[in-house]
Amino acid sequence: MATIREVALKAGVGIGTVSRALNGTGYIAEETKKKIMDAVEELEYRPNELAQNFFRNRSGFVGVLVPNLEHPFFSYLTKYMERELYKHGYKCMVCDVDDEISRQEEFFEMLRRNTMDGLITCVPIQSEGDRSGILRPIVAIDQNLGKNIPIIRSDHWQGGKMAAKLLQKAGCRLVLLLSPKRPHRYSAGLRYQAFEQTMEQNGCEVITLPVSADKMDFGYSLEEVRKHTEYLSGADAVFATDLIAAACLKLAHEKGIDVPGKLKIIGYDGLPLGGLLYPTLTTVCQNIPELARCGVETVVKMINGRRDIQQEYVIGVSMERGGTV
Amino acid sequence: MATIREVALKAGVGIGTVSRALNGTGYIAEETKKKIMDAVEELEYRPNELAQNFFRNRSGFVGVLVPNLEHPFFSYLTKYMERELYKHGYKCMVCDVDDEISRQEEFFEMLRRNTMDGLITCVPIQSEGDRSGILRPIVAIDQNLGKNIPIIRSDHWQGGKMAAKLLQKAGCRLVLLLSPKRPHRYSAGLRYQAFEQTMEQNGCEVITLPVSADKMDFGYSLEEVRKHTEYLSGADAVFATDLIAAACLKLAHEKGIDVPGKLKIIGYDGLPLGGLLYPTLTTVCQNIPELARCGVETVVKMINGRRDIQQEYVIGVSMERGGTV
Repeated sequence: MATIREVALKAGVGIGTVSRALNGTGYIAEETKKKIMDAVEELEYRPNELAQNFFRNRSGFVGVLVPNLEHPFFSYLTKYMERELYKHGYKCMVCDVDDEISRQEEFFEMLRRNTMDGLITCVPIQSEGDRSGILRPIVAIDQNLGKNIPIIRSDHWQGGKMAAKLLQKAGCRLVLLLSPKRPHRYSAGLRYQAFEQTMEQNGCEVITLPVSADKMDFGYSLEEVRKHTEYLSGADAVFATDLIAAACLKLAHEKGIDVPGKLKIIGYDGLPLGGLLYPTLTTVCQNIPELARCGVETVVKMINGRRDIQQEYVIGVSMERGGTV
Repeated sequence: MATIREVALKAGVGIGTVSRALNGTGYIAEETKKKIMDAVEELEYRPNELAQNFFRNRSGFVGVLVPNLEHPFFSYLTKYMERELYKHGYKCMVCDVDDEISRQEEFFEMLRRNTMDGLITCVPIQSEGDRSGILRPIVAIDQNLGKNIPIIRSDHWQGGKMAAKLLQKAGCRLVLLLSPKRPHRYSAGLRYQAFEQTMEQNGCEVITLPVSADKMDFGYSLEEVRKHTEYLSGADAVFATDLIAAACLKLAHEKGIDVPGKLKIIGYDGLPLGGLLYPTLTTVCQNIPELARCGVETVVKMINGRRDIQQEYVIGVSMERGGTV
């Protein structure tokens, strides 16, 4: 493989000039640049990216921290973030935290050690102290991590309200709200508050049933919902995230409860799997591509030292009508 | 932030000695090492990983190339690969090729430029020439990419046979096989061959209906299956990947076809979403964690220059009984 020295020799310039031309870090006459590029092409010279990164003090990587890639919300989000990062010239380093919250710490350590130019996190960070000594930007999805960490989130308040209004229009009076035990830890918890408030303002009864938000897999959704089986037959409707809503639909089928005739079900997230269920799940759809686009744009702006950054970006949601309401 | 110079000064040694101690690249007396580590701790010195990578000529990254993260098979595979890479001290750089096959090329370019220490690909590579000048190892999942590229795959032949035997035992005589148009491009195509052969050897009729393997999302599965609606009511059973099988189940519900009474459905992959369907999907389960473990172990061995590498690793499959057969 050709070296930078050979390129310089061929182009009749110094090594420093070749380096400046390739890295775009100084003025080079057009004619000289052309000579260098011709030499690069002829010799099939490939700059060593490790060397370039070292001299530029940037890695070209942005980390994406997710709680669980098995959950389709996070695999879609990762998919779209990877695409958006790519458009901006960044590579996507993914970390699935799962049950090991300590893996988060290691990603912060990587930010300190310059392995990443920035980080987008979808995982709640436990304490303020964790982030000391980090000079590279962090952007949070759906989590309020404090000052200097912009938050990108869906308009969950609007989403919860939309779900409530749809059920009211359908004549529901007694509804089950399956929500995490500590929804206030996430901005996503706003949807449950908005739902409850809107239902109760209109004289409907809301029974809140706790489901754990700590695990996020399919088997777990079913287990969690089975604990509340007795409630299903007495209620008019259910509101929950898509995975939990899908588990409710399955349970209703098992118990011979007609959906939507006897029980209406409305999901939250708008995951494509809702389309494979029977009937198709009615759901409040989060705009995952837009969440990803906005998250990436914000972290890239911060990497580039831009100051026109908002503390919060709120992305609109929409209702996707299936056959469960 | 402390510099390596300050650490050297504090420990009373030269900068080169500190560098050797931290990188483990030469003999250092235990006593000296201790002095250096004490200084590192006291000064909270954090080595710049970009510099370390440059001097070691390794990046610590392994690329994972997938056709579509929206497909749960690939998001689980990525999840487990990321975990396994982490155990071996590597970071996971993910690339979702989707429809842009050219993105593959860029990953090969990164292998050439030392941005990655190795690559695990789940995407079929189009031509032999693409890989010229790559000195870093590549491992393939389910694809035969030629000599020097080990292949990790499920025992698809056994899987296809298991599905056929189960349907025969259930008394099926006329079955629909929904398979990609060019299954021979993938080792996964073996399952369709084994299924067809086993069914026909036992006097059963197999009608093969083409579904495209190029797109991999949920909406597309439904569209593809709807093209073959007329066949569903005349057949005893369907064999297809989980996503296509789920779409068939939905279509059967829509058409009022009783599953499993009138139509039996057997999936392939063993994705958790099968557990949310009603009835639960019966499916041939690929061992995704083991595919990931084996793929990562192989690429890491190759990075470390080991020669005890097989050309092919075949991972066993198992039958997961749900309620659709």
